[in-house]
Amino acid sequence: MLEVGYSVPRFDARSKVTGEEKYAADCFPEGFAWGGVKRAGIAHAKIVGIETAPARALAGVIAVLTHQDVPGTNRQGLVHKDQPVLAAEKVRHWGDPVALVIAESRETLARALSLIRVDLEPLPGVFDAEQALRPQAPLVHESGNLLLKGEIRAGKGEDALGECEIVVEETFEVPFQEHAFIETENGVAWQEADGTICMHVSSQAPFRDRFEIAHALGIDPLKIRVSSPYLGGGFGGKDGATVQCLLALAALNSGGRPVKMSWDREESFVAGYKRHPVRMYYRLGARPDGTLHGLHCRLYWDTGPYAHLGGEVMELGMEHAGGPYRIPNTEIEGWCVYTNNPISGAMRGFGVCQVSFAFERVMDLLAKKLGMDPLALRIKNGLRRGDKNCCGVTMVHSTGIVPCLEALGRHRLWTERDEWKRSAGPFKRRGTGIAAVLNAMGYGRGLPDSAIARVELTPEGKIRVFCGVVDMGQGNSNAFLQIAGEILCQDSSCVELVHPDTGRTHPSGSSSAGRTTYTYGNALIRACEELKAKLFHRTALFLMLDEPRGLALAPGAVRHLPTNREVPLAMLGKSFPESDRVCISEYVMPVAQDVPDTGKDFSIGFPHVLFSHAAHIACVEVDELTGKVTVEKYLAVTEGGRIINPQGFEQQVHGAVGQGIGYALMERLMMKDGRILNPDFTNYILPTSLDLPDLDSIAVETVEPTGPFGMKGIGEVGINAPLPAIASAIEDAVGAAVNRAPISAACVLHALSGRERANDADGGVQR
Amino acid sequence: MLEVGYSVPRFDARSKVTGEEKYAADCFPEGFAWGGVKRAGIAHAKIVGIETAPARALAGVIAVLTHQDVPGTNRQGLVHKDQPVLAAEKVRHWGDPVALVIAESRETLARALSLIRVDLEPLPGVFDAEQALRPQAPLVHESGNLLLKGEIRAGKGEDALGECEIVVEETFEVPFQEHAFIETENGVAWQEADGTICMHVSSQAPFRDRFEIAHALGIDPLKIRVSSPYLGGGFGGKDGATVQCLLALAALNSGGRPVKMSWDREESFVAGYKRHPVRMYYRLGARPDGTLHGLHCRLYWDTGPYAHLGGEVMELGMEHAGGPYRIPNTEIEGWCVYTNNPISGAMRGFGVCQVSFAFERVMDLLAKKLGMDPLALRIKNGLRRGDKNCCGVTMVHSTGIVPCLEALGRHRLWTERDEWKRSAGPFKRRGTGIAAVLNAMGYGRGLPDSAIARVELTPEGKIRVFCGVVDMGQGNSNAFLQIAGEILCQDSSCVELVHPDTGRTHPSGSSSAGRTTYTYGNALIRACEELKAKLFHRTALFLMLDEPRGLALAPGAVRHLPTNREVPLAMLGKSFPESDRVCISEYVMPVAQDVPDTGKDFSIGFPHVLFSHAAHIACVEVDELTGKVTVEKYLAVTEGGRIINPQGFEQQVHGAVGQGIGYALMERLMMKDGRILNPDFTNYILPTSLDLPDLDSIAVETVEPTGPFGMKGIGEVGINAPLPAIASAIEDAVGAAVNRAPISAACVLHALSGRERANDADGGVQR
Repeated sequence: MLEVGYSVPRFDARSKVTGEEKYAADCFPEGFAWGGVKRAGIAHAKIVGIETAPARALAGVIAVLTHQDVPGTNRQGLVHKDQPVLAAEKVRHWGDPVALVIAESRETLARALSLIRVDLEPLPGVFDAEQALRPQAPLVHESGNLLLKGEIRAGKGEDALGECEIVVEETFEVPFQEHAFIETENGVAWQEADGTICMHVSSQAPFRDRFEIAHALGIDPLKIRVSSPYLGGGFGGKDGATVQCLLALAALNSGGRPVKMSWDREESFVAGYKRHPVRMYYRLGARPDGTLHGLHCRLYWDTGPYAHLGGEVMELGMEHAGGPYRIPNTEIEGWCVYTNNPISGAMRGFGVCQVSFAFERVMDLLAKKLGMDPLALRIKNGLRRGDKNCCGVTMVHSTGIVPCLEALGRHRLWTERDEWKRSAGPFKRRGTGIAAVLNAMGYGRGLPDSAIARVELTPEGKIRVFCGVVDMGQGNSNAFLQIAGEILCQDSSCVELVHPDTGRTHPSGSSSAGRTTYTYGNALIRACEELKAKLFHRTALFLMLDEPRGLALAPGAVRHLPTNREVPLAMLGKSFPESDRVCISEYVMPVAQDVPDTGKDFSIGFPHVLFSHAAHIACVEVDELTGKVTVEKYLAVTEGGRIINPQGFEQQVHGAVGQGIGYALMERLMMKDGRILNPDFTNYILPTSLDLPDLDSIAVETVEPTGPFGMKGIGEVGINAPLPAIASAIEDAVGAAVNRAPISAACVLHALSGRERANDADGGVQR
Repeated sequence: MLEVGYSVPRFDARSKVTGEEKYAADCFPEGFAWGGVKRAGIAHAKIVGIETAPARALAGVIAVLTHQDVPGTNRQGLVHKDQPVLAAEKVRHWGDPVALVIAESRETLARALSLIRVDLEPLPGVFDAEQALRPQAPLVHESGNLLLKGEIRAGKGEDALGECEIVVEETFEVPFQEHAFIETENGVAWQEADGTICMHVSSQAPFRDRFEIAHALGIDPLKIRVSSPYLGGGFGGKDGATVQCLLALAALNSGGRPVKMSWDREESFVAGYKRHPVRMYYRLGARPDGTLHGLHCRLYWDTGPYAHLGGEVMELGMEHAGGPYRIPNTEIEGWCVYTNNPISGAMRGFGVCQVSFAFERVMDLLAKKLGMDPLALRIKNGLRRGDKNCCGVTMVHSTGIVPCLEALGRHRLWTERDEWKRSAGPFKRRGTGIAAVLNAMGYGRGLPDSAIARVELTPEGKIRVFCGVVDMGQGNSNAFLQIAGEILCQDSSCVELVHPDTGRTHPSGSSSAGRTTYTYGNALIRACEELKAKLFHRTALFLMLDEPRGLALAPGAVRHLPTNREVPLAMLGKSFPESDRVCISEYVMPVAQDVPDTGKDFSIGFPHVLFSHAAHIACVEVDELTGKVTVEKYLAVTEGGRIINPQGFEQQVHGAVGQGIGYALMERLMMKDGRILNPDFTNYILPTSLDLPDLDSIAVETVEPTGPFGMKGIGEVGINAPLPAIASAIEDAVGAAVNRAPISAACVLHALSGRERANDADGGVQR
């Protein structure tokens, strides 16, 4: 029986483990050709000419296309359409595509790409957000390097810092982060006889992809069909066009043959989206008793050469810049800036990861200056329902940061921390650090966060869920079958799922923003309830009941309890036409009713009202001889409303913490003049399971009345805390502040040698 | 902030720990007198006369009353009115009250009671349920010794056993159990100037008490007011009249003075209610693959001299006689029989505790005979939603036994059991045993399980919850404030609770049957939602809003989000009359729609549709030299829908398991001719915290859509599993079956000496 609240094993576990499940990357349609792209290989340059003839002449080459072959606007971009499908006048980053080749084999493709000569006139590049804002800085776009300037002001703003008895001030830097999904960007596309472009692609947003393609290539969006199977990871890096427009362009030029494109790891590094690097100037003021009073911060976001979701990432970061705390007076300024670095975009945490580091570090600084326990300081200022957050928005939904912090305070990692630290072995130092974080859920105001669910009783008597949102590995598909099974009282043998396909399922938004299970789940609940009522009504007809009372669903049947008669679902399925067996319902997420004036510059995605919360504690051991940092113990306390599947919940927490530990300690993109020097997993080091501590996970299940069974999305919140918690723990161990990530052994060793700041050694963020 | 789902500390913790909280036993009104009762001191006898004159003559004696002074029917009893307030023609058990004394002091009272002489003509007694059914047995009541015969039949009944390839058969006996609450039965009563009888009493059902008193004493029930503060324990033993009618009678005869009655420990043992001893004959049949096919059982319940809730306890036991399993063919026969033993009645588990032992033991027997893993056998046959239980009732609500068993199967106590057993020290043997149980919630059909909640915004701006159900220590009060705080967005400083008082709160049934938080909680949710709407409407008037939109509750205020204006609750409280600040709402628990024919003899309380589930594993160590059994490790997996307060949930599980371990191993009421030989805690041994293992508790939170925030009551289910799990573990350790409780060291030692049954040594149940 599928029951919500229970660790129902993933129905797709077996097919995934055995390799039976087909990802987009596993799709090799009959007669397919290979598509691939010539990349610029320079960060900033004018395109003087593109010589394609030698490539075209190569046997086995089907087509070589440049910007001149793009039939539409040649522009893609989710909010601002500023990114060419194939670069025309200039290239703005190392990975800009300049030509598309279709070939019979992968070998021919590689050879053809190597034969294309791009005549480039190098331009001076800019590789730092603040430098890009200087008057003489090279211009990435003619309109200037500033994509978006934002300001959020609440209460007296910056002026309130003058009223504060205690003010702490610090600058922080966080680096790029690579999504590093197992399945790189890829897909297959072909043109049907009726002209429809069909695409099977590893995408977080198949419905939106149609409009990206349509705009870029000048095609009727209704003549595009996009389907998306399971993703081998997404994390935001497949939210927006990667291969889509290129593939569609290829399909238009392949003579009807399917074209497959699959970026290899290096191409994924070079051309894929990244987490935004940010430089953050923070000033936080408090009263002598520790009550937070004022915050001022300036945040510089390096969004790379194209807008993508840069403005929205910055908005969300700014919205979270004050952490999960009450601060009556705030002034939060943000600049989202074009550079010639790789393209930054959506990534798990979506801007919040970055500011959480800065804010939690200044909270620690403040606690130290006040001589106050850092946990007590956080509990004292923790947001409660009815409070206003740092943007002045009232928290009217479940607001569980204080319960999280209190649960952390009762855990032995906290209560026994001093004893644990004292028992460090020779040449080892130990420290503990905590962090309190939150993460908004959903799109926020300006873009309805909506989903449409369709559920059908099949002629065979099964319940079929038509799912409009992608499962990129987080397990939402499983949650959907659990929800359908729960409401319709069926076990896993009687339910099945149709993956997102613009031709079969309904638009339900992207798989992102912690919204997937919440929004689609709510729509699905409604659809299932409607189907239940419909099945009861049809059963009453069958059983000649005067009214549909006393009916109940049982596995495979509807039963009339008073008379003990039942009608098998298979009989109902056979007996009625489709319209009697299908229910479609929709849901839109609630939005803030009190929109701060300061948010007026943000057209999409500000503010939010639904947040998940977490409090983490990291216990690290530092090797005095090598500077190596080991996370020995770790606890994540998470508040995300009601848990639909405890195992799935825990997997999300584990995954987020693992990715956060990589962000904190290991993942360093080495950059030189906009070129990534380590576009591979040999030199860009990801944590493996051996690098991760045994992780304790506690859930605080508060109630979110609007959520499906009371749930909120928690896929993102867990990544925001590891960096600040680990930085705090390292400071506790070595006695020097850590204000830049990733935190290398070298910089820790440097700190151990007595310098005040651990990061002085190696410049922290390398760009 | 009060949030549902979070371990909000009990708001009454401080007042209880410091002794500030006043229980009924702490009530000493000005000018009060002491009331007390002369007990029969013989199990069965004709009353020839009662000499009260010497007692009456004693200085300081206010009144001495006998049955002749009882103005009404002199009969009490919740379902059958067969129990005299003061015995008239005969006494039917050792503790029957024959005279009531009111005196100035406790010393005088004791002296007066000792001066009363009861002239008794002894009658032969009967002390065993089966013996009481024999033709020549002494009659406890002239109408015969059978209180109730019941039969539940599903499918082919007993005949199906003939179709079974494997049939196991066994007889089981379970003993009396004492409630052993810290606060014994007590109260204070007085008569107001207008004739109203007021009573402050340790009772689980103050509203029903009025009708018991009214019937017994011939008083208008509306001229009786009963209030009940916190109870120092109840467990069912205060569900029904104990001191109530006696106290009311005293108040009618004390000249207007308050009368206090408080049973000492011995009196509580002698006169208080007990758990029913039962003898159970079981036959269970299965198919070769382990599919359960047929069950026949005969159950003999010793209910003592008066009906009390005996019939209902038996009904519930019979309803659970097949455990949490699918058995298509059942025949369950029960006899509830009068004897001259102490009065049996309600006790945590309410009949289910007893049959759970028998059924789980025959499941183990069956597993052994089939050569099947006992966990696999249980999972295979575990009830799922849509299945019919052993009574033929469809499980249409949350049915979580399989998830519980699966979670148990993943736990290290199960997966590492063989290793643990092998590592026993010298002269020690180890064994593990499991048990799967369920427990119905609520009254069942025939008596609406209803509650009425009242919630008020006080003139001071606080939220006051008028609670109609008693908190006997289980923490429901705290859950109610959590619910009100959750819905109305208030913290603990802004909510308060009024305890049950027939003069101030509304009838909400008894604190029993796992129904309290479910039924009253649902009523309270409705009342709070109505109050919220009312507060929004009144705030709209205040703020001159055209419509009450964009309003939200915040601690201490209602806020209009779009304009950021707010109205303090204190201002709303001051500005409106009571009727504008109060909401009252009600709830009735759902009942079964498919009532088996076989249940027709059961007028009240059959069948049920809402159940909580649990799977336990006990790991015991047996000392080969002494037979001593130590429960070394224990895990309880509990499914009770959504958890409102995890800490409160865990406390209930711990308490139930502790009480269950006492029932299994320690608590033995020594009886001779109806007399309790050990009416004290020196010789009736309760487990202390030192006797209990470290207990692991896991929750499986399935969804119960009808529950308040999805919860079900779990106060009882946990007590049903320890006895069968421990018995199974002992059998695993010593290789001999254990079919009687409590399981003493002597009987284990006997088993170790090689006898087939562990219980052969000392007769298990001593009566």
